[in-house]
Amino acid sequence: MNPKVDAIGGSLIREIAARKKPGSIDLGLGEPSLLPTIRYFYAAVNSVEKSGMRYTVNAGDLRLRELIAAHYGYPHAASAENVCVTTGSQEAVYVAIKTLMDPAKDEMLLVEPAFPAYKKMALLEGIAVRTLSNREENDFAFEPRRILEGITDRTRLIVLCSPCNPTGRVISAAAVREIAGALSVRGGDPIYVLHDEVYREQTYIADAGYFAQVYPYTIVTNSLSKSNALTGLRIGWTLAPKPLAAAIVKTHAWVTSCASTYAQRIAAQIFATAGALQEHAAWYGERSASVVDILQHSGLRFVAPEGAFYACVALERGRSSLQAAHELADEEDVIAIPGVAFGASFESWLRLTWVAPLDEVREGIHRIARRYAPEAGKTLFGAT
Amino acid sequence: MNPKVDAIGGSLIREIAARKKPGSIDLGLGEPSLLPTIRYFYAAVNSVEKSGMRYTVNAGDLRLRELIAAHYGYPHAASAENVCVTTGSQEAVYVAIKTLMDPAKDEMLLVEPAFPAYKKMALLEGIAVRTLSNREENDFAFEPRRILEGITDRTRLIVLCSPCNPTGRVISAAAVREIAGALSVRGGDPIYVLHDEVYREQTYIADAGYFAQVYPYTIVTNSLSKSNALTGLRIGWTLAPKPLAAAIVKTHAWVTSCASTYAQRIAAQIFATAGALQEHAAWYGERSASVVDILQHSGLRFVAPEGAFYACVALERGRSSLQAAHELADEEDVIAIPGVAFGASFESWLRLTWVAPLDEVREGIHRIARRYAPEAGKTLFGAT
Repeated sequence: MNPKVDAIGGSLIREIAARKKPGSIDLGLGEPSLLPTIRYFYAAVNSVEKSGMRYTVNAGDLRLRELIAAHYGYPHAASAENVCVTTGSQEAVYVAIKTLMDPAKDEMLLVEPAFPAYKKMALLEGIAVRTLSNREENDFAFEPRRILEGITDRTRLIVLCSPCNPTGRVISAAAVREIAGALSVRGGDPIYVLHDEVYREQTYIADAGYFAQVYPYTIVTNSLSKSNALTGLRIGWTLAPKPLAAAIVKTHAWVTSCASTYAQRIAAQIFATAGALQEHAAWYGERSASVVDILQHSGLRFVAPEGAFYACVALERGRSSLQAAHELADEEDVIAIPGVAFGASFESWLRLTWVAPLDEVREGIHRIARRYAPEAGKTLFGAT
Repeated sequence: MNPKVDAIGGSLIREIAARKKPGSIDLGLGEPSLLPTIRYFYAAVNSVEKSGMRYTVNAGDLRLRELIAAHYGYPHAASAENVCVTTGSQEAVYVAIKTLMDPAKDEMLLVEPAFPAYKKMALLEGIAVRTLSNREENDFAFEPRRILEGITDRTRLIVLCSPCNPTGRVISAAAVREIAGALSVRGGDPIYVLHDEVYREQTYIADAGYFAQVYPYTIVTNSLSKSNALTGLRIGWTLAPKPLAAAIVKTHAWVTSCASTYAQRIAAQIFATAGALQEHAAWYGERSASVVDILQHSGLRFVAPEGAFYACVALERGRSSLQAAHELADEEDVIAIPGVAFGASFESWLRLTWVAPLDEVREGIHRIARRYAPEAGKTLFGAT
């Protein structure tokens, strides 16, 4: 068997999510609880009735790619040739990393806490990964100087997710400019930035930064999973400068051939409809404010979300987040993801997804506080 | 950039297919022209309306995997744990090869003529590929002794597609027994067989062989693309013995996370409906007979299809199939795939897909015969 497959684990997030019992409060898996807009599905079925369900070209339907490129208008990825439509942002990240990186010499710099897939994918490809972590004492904010100091002679790619899964922090436009500026003047082979924008439509601050607006060597990955409650549709894309974009299409062609034509038809409707990508954005904005309010009364230390749909809460320093997640699942009927899944620096934290009904989110946070911040919890929630 | 991505080409089949002009007769891309059954789509939309469009577990919906395993009833892949649901059979083959093969030592033995993806995927992973070819003088029949003689000390996997793309030949039950028997008694680490069964529902002979029925180290890949005219849905699966099956799920999880939930709901309906996988089989059987009749009158040398929806015709020996395909596309408005795409041994052949309206198939074959077997063509079709 392939020793690289053997060496990496499966998904800890999925392992914890699988502990859910009927009646458990689910603050685990990162997917929306809203229902998607159903008319897109019916329109796509009508098109199947008329023209069947055939392959698109490997890169994805031309009109969809034009719509995606035009929607974002990134200066170095402004045409259909810069887009590759993929099976969710998971395949988008996979083919981007696989295409860009030479395992014989290139190193990936991963900004943690981070969704575990980036590192697992790199290890699967035999690519060296160097990690650095945003600092707990700075509430896990993205710090340009810290990121730039992580660069070595071998760094070919910096990977970050903003809005961040798990922390909910968003990199600022100023921070992006500072990093892009430093990368632009350093000379030598360019260092690419992979900016995972999958939570772009869940951004609650005004000055969010986007690398692709200012830095030519940016690969953007994104999907409709989070914005439009379409996780199960598996439709995503990469935006990349040429000629990398064409090479990404080639890798994608051999891995999955092309993305689902049905899903592409739904995506084309969304990109052709003004405001459709933001159709759930107001809900997330209101909900994030409610969750911050609950957390402020919980007695738990937390990171206030600037984006995404997570809130992270601290356990006592030194406590195992995995053990806490198991205790919560088994004894408190609360599914929460242990911080260690996102990097060693997040060991004493839990990631809470707050898309369940608000009463359940409140009750789940209450149970966590009762167990891990008992004095505060008693005061603030009342005795149980 | 990753030198392995750089080194492999894109799809020659797609390149030729892209030469199609309005009005061209399309005997190119390997996808059905029938429309899929639309009620599956509406039922799937109803389920989205009720329960949204969320992820399934990485391996795929449990009930779907149970249905798939039960449908085939292969003795060493009889339960849901043996199944991984994928983004088409393309991802199925990709994750199977990537999971099984250690690039540092394992060699893949590919039986040609063969769909180019197998070799391209192996090269993308840095896996050594040894090819052998079914023989033209034997009309490209699968020959057990020849395949067994191709095995070396490093062979870990034998890859074949039956019914075969491109030749339309089907491996017999006796040939499968002979190969399986020899592999079973050889000792040492097992050699796996990857049997791509994607054309299983287009089989026109009675004694087709299936490795998974008799050989424990068989990986089956398949999809609904060809059987149910669902190429664009991107739904496929692997069937594999344990513990390989679990490792395949792990690779799949990091590459695409999970297959489309929407597509899985359609697949579950098909597997739960008696005869639904065969709903187009009669059409293909009748059509294959008509095509053989046309070919017999064409003056072209051809391989009569025992399965799949291709017919292969010979050019004069030594003629470049790529040049012929270009001539046909540009001067005769006929799209046909050059044999060289499937291996050097198929250089003087063209692959013709015969799913277009029968008059177009007849006219396309007529134009090919007129150009490449002019004397025969004149006699049999009448002067043009």
